[in-house]
Amino acid sequence: MKQVHKTYSTHERTRPIMVGNHQIGKDIVVIAGPCSVESQDQILTAARQMKAAGATMLRGGAFKPRSSPYSFQGLGERGIRFLYAAKEETGLPIVSELMTPDHLPLFEQYVDVIQIGARNMQNYDLLKAVGRSHLPVLLKRGLSARVDEFLLAAEYIMAEGNDQVILCERGIRTFETATRSTLDLSAVPVLKEKTYLPVIVDPSHAAGRYDLVAPLSKAAIAVGADGLIIEVHPNPKEALCDGPQSLTPKRYGDLINSLVPLAASTGRQLAL
Amino acid sequence: MKQVHKTYSTHERTRPIMVGNHQIGKDIVVIAGPCSVESQDQILTAARQMKAAGATMLRGGAFKPRSSPYSFQGLGERGIRFLYAAKEETGLPIVSELMTPDHLPLFEQYVDVIQIGARNMQNYDLLKAVGRSHLPVLLKRGLSARVDEFLLAAEYIMAEGNDQVILCERGIRTFETATRSTLDLSAVPVLKEKTYLPVIVDPSHAAGRYDLVAPLSKAAIAVGADGLIIEVHPNPKEALCDGPQSLTPKRYGDLINSLVPLAASTGRQLAL
Amino acid sequence: MKQVHKTYSTHERTRPIMVGNHQIGKDIVVIAGPCSVESQDQILTAARQMKAAGATMLRGGAFKPRSSPYSFQGLGERGIRFLYAAKEETGLPIVSELMTPDHLPLFEQYVDVIQIGARNMQNYDLLKAVGRSHLPVLLKRGLSARVDEFLLAAEYIMAEGNDQVILCERGIRTFETATRSTLDLSAVPVLKEKTYLPVIVDPSHAAGRYDLVAPLSKAAIAVGADGLIIEVHPNPKEALCDGPQSLTPKRYGDLINSLVPLAASTGRQLAL
Amino acid sequence: MKQVHKTYSTHERTRPIMVGNHQIGKDIVVIAGPCSVESQDQILTAARQMKAAGATMLRGGAFKPRSSPYSFQGLGERGIRFLYAAKEETGLPIVSELMTPDHLPLFEQYVDVIQIGARNMQNYDLLKAVGRSHLPVLLKRGLSARVDEFLLAAEYIMAEGNDQVILCERGIRTFETATRSTLDLSAVPVLKEKTYLPVIVDPSHAAGRYDLVAPLSKAAIAVGADGLIIEVHPNPKEALCDGPQSLTPKRYGDLINSLVPLAASTGRQLAL
Repeated sequence: MKQVHKTYSTHERTRPIMVGNHQIGKDIVVIAGPCSVESQDQILTAARQMKAAGATMLRGGAFKPRSSPYSFQGLGERGIRFLYAAKEETGLPIVSELMTPDHLPLFEQYVDVIQIGARNMQNYDLLKAVGRSHLPVLLKRGLSARVDEFLLAAEYIMAEGNDQVILCERGIRTFETATRSTLDLSAVPVLKEKTYLPVIVDPSHAAGRYDLVAPLSKAAIAVGADGLIIEVHPNPKEALCDGPQSLTPKRYGDLINSLVPLAASTGRQLAL
Repeated sequence: MKQVHKTYSTHERTRPIMVGNHQIGKDIVVIAGPCSVESQDQILTAARQMKAAGATMLRGGAFKPRSSPYSFQGLGERGIRFLYAAKEETGLPIVSELMTPDHLPLFEQYVDVIQIGARNMQNYDLLKAVGRSHLPVLLKRGLSARVDEFLLAAEYIMAEGNDQVILCERGIRTFETATRSTLDLSAVPVLKEKTYLPVIVDPSHAAGRYDLVAPLSKAAIAVGADGLIIEVHPNPKEALCDGPQSLTPKRYGDLINSLVPLAASTGRQLAL
Repeated sequence: MKQVHKTYSTHERTRPIMVGNHQIGKDIVVIAGPCSVESQDQILTAARQMKAAGATMLRGGAFKPRSSPYSFQGLGERGIRFLYAAKEETGLPIVSELMTPDHLPLFEQYVDVIQIGARNMQNYDLLKAVGRSHLPVLLKRGLSARVDEFLLAAEYIMAEGNDQVILCERGIRTFETATRSTLDLSAVPVLKEKTYLPVIVDPSHAAGRYDLVAPLSKAAIAVGADGLIIEVHPNPKEALCDGPQSLTPKRYGDLINSLVPLAASTGRQLAL
Repeated sequence: MKQVHKTYSTHERTRPIMVGNHQIGKDIVVIAGPCSVESQDQILTAARQMKAAGATMLRGGAFKPRSSPYSFQGLGERGIRFLYAAKEETGLPIVSELMTPDHLPLFEQYVDVIQIGARNMQNYDLLKAVGRSHLPVLLKRGLSARVDEFLLAAEYIMAEGNDQVILCERGIRTFETATRSTLDLSAVPVLKEKTYLPVIVDPSHAAGRYDLVAPLSKAAIAVGADGLIIEVHPNPKEALCDGPQSLTPKRYGDLINSLVPLAASTGRQLAL
């Protein structure tokens, strides 16, 4: 039943997407920052720390999809402006999650890459809207999406004319409870066999615990991913969300240092 | 809810297990060979090829747990003798799967490491029997076993007095159909945090397709595994089982060559 | 670890929701109709057949969430108008899926119950929008949503002021491939223990094959569900979507006949 | 892709298996009793209570497959003798789990039906052994076994000559945590379409909580199962295992009373 597959080089077929002066899909990108933008001070501090430790882009949520309507929902438009100020100072391009087409004009004004979260992977209305944008889209895999469905979700964006889609594996839902989700690293080479889109990995949300972020980041590079998106917080214990899975800036710096030789051993380098 | 965990070095706490002149849990072991022993000629050829390409141990099934009673069930005792002859010539220690306590005396005479398959991870009668053996046991994780249940299965062996248990992550059952199972590489650091037992990874059974074996092997080393168990067949197209997931000796050699610098970049080396 | 739970009557705590002259949560409702509205003729024929065979409400999709952007996406606003015409003739209240807040005014003009599909269970923008509507909402469980997440999604609607939410179990994603999803009937009593909202079951989407619709419908009534939503098509072989899981009107009539004594044996009756 | 299936009557094709004077697969059997035999007094009390409340057979574990080697492992041979004494007094045939071929002679002397547990569904050595027995075998579905694999496990027994196999759906492992496993009631009609073997359901192990046993038992009868296996304990709070999922004799009696009209509404009756 299963066909026999040809081997392939993990990244040479990938068609890079330009963000700032980086080609995503060529050198390995590292997107880092806190789960949520909490204040101008917090995101500026984080941005400086990321810049110092080495990062390709800054991440931070302003509109937060939370399971409960009573959890912190993000700073909204103010959060986006705080992110932009951090970009202005550090030069780091910014990535943030879009939850409704209504906010698209705001994002197009301030943000470099639009993130579509796992919960919205099959929110077709939203996919079509970003498909009409000129901005690159970082599309996260749904918690129970098969690889073929993930690619069809990307197709919804591309069918509208925007082929700047960055796929992101972030763990799937299984019976295992030691981690929040099960990071499906096999999906990286499977996706890269089926598409020319860059594929990055989110070890923070997959694991749900910070001590696994370093080993999973290394595994993601080794399996052929084009980058990482990592949660880092100036002070994880006081984070308004996802503290337990956030690295301290110190641990983040150590991780970056350990990724350099690893990437080199696979013939690639970090885009820092 | 989730506690905050301390970071740890991936392998320094591991207590090595001696097999031949190798310490499993120290340098990275590579166990390679065909799914099934098919003939004296086939396993000898395979053993010579593994030896030439670089391998720590030879694997081969003589008693095969097959989903259907009408599939090839292995050569039985003859298969074990053929494996032993291959060991005699090449010096490679041998690993083979035990399915019933009745065959334990045979295995203790000829085999270096007893494998307990995923289907038998909670076959307590069998676990207790190998717990009374002097041989190391390679215990595979069940397809739907949580990490805590996997460790309790190992405990069944150790409670009988045999603490030479090598844990093997080989993929868990999920909804994804692009691969046969979903390799749960997060389990490697999770296991290594909870136990001093060596942990190896089987990318061949997890993926069910040969083209993913190389990237998943690299990821396994990067995530901190103590070794790999890989299916290689002199001629995969004619294999009596698992042909689609078996590497050719040529591809296996290429993989070993690519693992050397990767292991070095993580501060370890292959036990070849 | 698991607490001991008190037993409870399966439906006496449920607070009914009025639709037309039916109280959903009291007598057992049966919502039936085709996956998609395909033409005025098709939906009118279907509506007459449902009315004749016995149904509480008519279902039909005008805006279709399809995995591929290249599949039939529904008739859109025309489909809603066709449904309304069918309601005008037969008197059956209508249920249809809403995919974007932009269509809410259209739905509020023509539709009796707004359906939120499984893919949109955590589309918070959409949940909030229907939370501000005066119409009842039929909320389907996401394919990988735990019961607690399902209830939190309902909470997003209710937090905006609309507490007329009908929960719908429609199968979860598992490794089993004999059915499209695995219908989680345990979720019905679990939900009814935790909430006063009515809970109905969709056996058609769960199974993905028509021959299981009858036994699963019976099981749903027996487990305590407040109703069913069933796909029926005048001619399943020519259906533009979901043909294999659609009942013929004849089989639908037979099913209704078999549900009457079953419901009676549990002390309830069908709302026909 | 999915073929269109023919409808079928849920039980008319089933070939009954004789146990005592009952034909399993004809009238609906109810197997009840405690998880473990704890003492002669406990199992006798339980047997009398089951007999009084209405039961087809008595269940009780003497050899217990426990995840931890340090949990109560059962009374062993003494437990089997206690069960037999309970059978002698009440006339209820007995079912107990076999964990190793070594105990087969003991079971053949005292037991009426051999149970193979979910963990041993692919313990081929054990399957072959009971395939050579003259006793009926109650085979439980593995936690991650697909329906086709479940049937192949039955085939291992039948290939040795014993075609008296009773299949038992007992829940599969999924991400849902509200219940211990997810009872897959769709599997009942799927199995009955593919085989002439009787199919029963274990709601107690699936749910892991006693308050769901009654609704799931009703659903099992409604979906077409040929029987139930239910945990009942004279005093659940003091049970040595599975107390939280055990019914009291009073609740068990109430359940039996509620099943009688339900079975009648589907054209069947209980074998009491």
